[in-house]
Amino acid sequence: MDKLTMEDVFRTLSKPLQDFEVKPGKTALLLIDFQELVCSKPLLREAVGAGLPERQVREALREYDNRIRKAVKNAQRILEACREKGYDVMHVKLGAQTNNPLHTAKVNRKADFIVPNDAEKGRFLREVKPIEGELVFPKTNGGAFTGTNLDFVLRNMDINSVIITGFLTDQCVLATAVYAGDVGYDVLLVEDACTGTTRENHDAVVRIAKDVFLKVKTTRELLRTL
Amino acid sequence: MDKLTMEDVFRTLSKPLQDFEVKPGKTALLLIDFQELVCSKPLLREAVGAGLPERQVREALREYDNRIRKAVKNAQRILEACREKGYDVMHVKLGAQTNNPLHTAKVNRKADFIVPNDAEKGRFLREVKPIEGELVFPKTNGGAFTGTNLDFVLRNMDINSVIITGFLTDQCVLATAVYAGDVGYDVLLVEDACTGTTRENHDAVVRIAKDVFLKVKTTRELLRTL
Amino acid sequence: MDKLTMEDVFRTLSKPLQDFEVKPGKTALLLIDFQELVCSKPLLREAVGAGLPERQVREALREYDNRIRKAVKNAQRILEACREKGYDVMHVKLGAQTNNPLHTAKVNRKADFIVPNDAEKGRFLREVKPIEGELVFPKTNGGAFTGTNLDFVLRNMDINSVIITGFLTDQCVLATAVYAGDVGYDVLLVEDACTGTTRENHDAVVRIAKDVFLKVKTTRELLRTL
Amino acid sequence: MDKLTMEDVFRTLSKPLQDFEVKPGKTALLLIDFQELVCSKPLLREAVGAGLPERQVREALREYDNRIRKAVKNAQRILEACREKGYDVMHVKLGAQTNNPLHTAKVNRKADFIVPNDAEKGRFLREVKPIEGELVFPKTNGGAFTGTNLDFVLRNMDINSVIITGFLTDQCVLATAVYAGDVGYDVLLVEDACTGTTRENHDAVVRIAKDVFLKVKTTRELLRTL
Repeated sequence: MDKLTMEDVFRTLSKPLQDFEVKPGKTALLLIDFQELVCSKPLLREAVGAGLPERQVREALREYDNRIRKAVKNAQRILEACREKGYDVMHVKLGAQTNNPLHTAKVNRKADFIVPNDAEKGRFLREVKPIEGELVFPKTNGGAFTGTNLDFVLRNMDINSVIITGFLTDQCVLATAVYAGDVGYDVLLVEDACTGTTRENHDAVVRIAKDVFLKVKTTRELLRTL
Repeated sequence: MDKLTMEDVFRTLSKPLQDFEVKPGKTALLLIDFQELVCSKPLLREAVGAGLPERQVREALREYDNRIRKAVKNAQRILEACREKGYDVMHVKLGAQTNNPLHTAKVNRKADFIVPNDAEKGRFLREVKPIEGELVFPKTNGGAFTGTNLDFVLRNMDINSVIITGFLTDQCVLATAVYAGDVGYDVLLVEDACTGTTRENHDAVVRIAKDVFLKVKTTRELLRTL
Repeated sequence: MDKLTMEDVFRTLSKPLQDFEVKPGKTALLLIDFQELVCSKPLLREAVGAGLPERQVREALREYDNRIRKAVKNAQRILEACREKGYDVMHVKLGAQTNNPLHTAKVNRKADFIVPNDAEKGRFLREVKPIEGELVFPKTNGGAFTGTNLDFVLRNMDINSVIITGFLTDQCVLATAVYAGDVGYDVLLVEDACTGTTRENHDAVVRIAKDVFLKVKTTRELLRTL
Repeated sequence: MDKLTMEDVFRTLSKPLQDFEVKPGKTALLLIDFQELVCSKPLLREAVGAGLPERQVREALREYDNRIRKAVKNAQRILEACREKGYDVMHVKLGAQTNNPLHTAKVNRKADFIVPNDAEKGRFLREVKPIEGELVFPKTNGGAFTGTNLDFVLRNMDINSVIITGFLTDQCVLATAVYAGDVGYDVLLVEDACTGTTRENHDAVVRIAKDVFLKVKTTRELLRTL
């Protein structure tokens, strides 16, 4: 046998997490922060406005943008399948009711990251935007649960398992997934329907969370089960 | 200018997180899961019992054990300073009131990770164990906030900033820190008073969280401010 | 000394609750369910539609309507004073994002009490309706805290005391006030800026809550302190 | 038809609340504050110590004591039936980990009502005290949900309906019942297994809550369904 890591040791000591099972009426799709603000265009404008050199910003954004586009495309496929099969869909977004900084949660206020509901950069990406009958949860912090009544709504709908997609894996998605697992939801993270600030951070979150407090699948794997 | 990463870009777009400030009556020290169960001795026994080859397990544990010991020693110094200066101290631990699996939260029950309050492996490490007058929060899941009344207690004490130490950086510490930042606490993660399943996972969590939703300091840096 | 009641006995055993103090930046005004649906017009229509005899319904509504109008007038004076002095104002209302019953909380769904956001009867009473810059919290259950992110918002604004007005004293106002007191807010119930299903129930709630977990004042008394 | 009250009108407009159904594995019995401190003996001592005239206190306590004893006896019968049939039992009690006032929630701290875990008056009444394998939830405020992890535990056990018994109807029982109904539990209040500061307050709470956000039964009615 090869060298063991402590990850191997810990995994041996736990019962393997059961496969994630979609259950009509029990499973909801969560779409986290699919908004203009994760796209390269506003990021480019802001970064250059903040004094970063345009050429290097463009270069960094190129790789990032590819990851975002791929994740949006995958989320779109999942969303369409969920709508077709009647799975509940919950859209979570950054959005403050006013531009009064006090109406944005401290964690984002400290970073001066305020996104009023009517801001252009707060608009949903058209590929995955809500349709009538779907719930939207605006938040002004990271995790979808701590700053909204999402948990209240889900439990009142008797939903106990969630499929998580969106941005960014190492920020809002992480906070949402950790909370969901921690309070008892079955959680599926669709690894190619989300991405992180960097690929490295995305991979780290997947490695840390996978089979510990959530299951990880690709879009293709998930679609086969819907 | 060198190549930019998306991490550089995102950080340029946020206001830098202010320095963490300890404030008597407002700051509490959280000690997460300083229990026998993180130590190499019970892990060795269990891993070998589960069929892993003893030699390789010992090797993996050696490096891990060094990290744990160092973190315990640092946490002990912080704890002693906090006691001396009168900062509030909260001990969080894995502990179920009964060994009925239903009394352990789903996230740990799924992994068959049940630690009854009277289990030997649940005992506090003597270097940092609670003394009279300090609160203990038993939990049966990962994060210290979701599964206990810690948040209720802290807000009723008017505490709004927390110093986080303990185990494991990529599991319970992560869940605790994410929640704390997300609901508005000022959070300090003491990077050498905690450690992860692997060093790589510890480093990833520090990189992901640092200056995004919490501040990171070493024990030495923190002690200078207490 | 006259006959003692157990209420006298219990009150002697507790330290009297301190006077409620308004504090700029720390105190918010909560307006609960100031909507058409509490008014006699829609109630008359619905009651007669449900088969109740119109004359008797009108009679019952006359006394109720007087109480409602008086409370609305008082709430309006408080609201105007709060706006003038810069106290934060939070509007809580019954309102579901969709008319899907599953999107209404169980407690109201069980009673078939569903108020979609765009329903006429859900409109704010014009005397106290929100103006730009004021937060609105739609809920689909009774208490303003359990079914919304109101608590999250208030604590992120460092607000620790609330002035409660609205409808009905023995339903949503009660649930809101009990929660607020229980988690640690200083609570003021303005007894003539709210009313109950019956006067008797209103009085019972005031008697039960007063000086136990909240303070009670009249509008006039409150206005003197703003 | 006789005179209508607004209570009649409102009830006509709601769908009647379905009967409360006990479901093995889904229903738990909550016992609230069955402790020495609700008994006439410590109350007499404290009231006289606080300067109230002994004779009048004794008189007030006589009627109160009868109500308490009857409720304890009924709760005991329910508890025994629940144990026999295998329903989960949760004991909630007033109890602070330390006698540091800051470790008691503000709502009780303001009233100087601090009950350390080891205080004599905090002891469970022997008729209904916990046995091995039953969970105990100490709290330092009124409602059993806001100040403990009871909600977390119940949802992780997949319990969605609760039978409420205990003291006092117009204080801790009220706060517990309102919260439980509001977040979606099916709630049964056993009207003769609880009582209030006064009979009048008890009756008012029953009248206000009954068939609005909970069902009310007598012990005898409940026992027939267990």
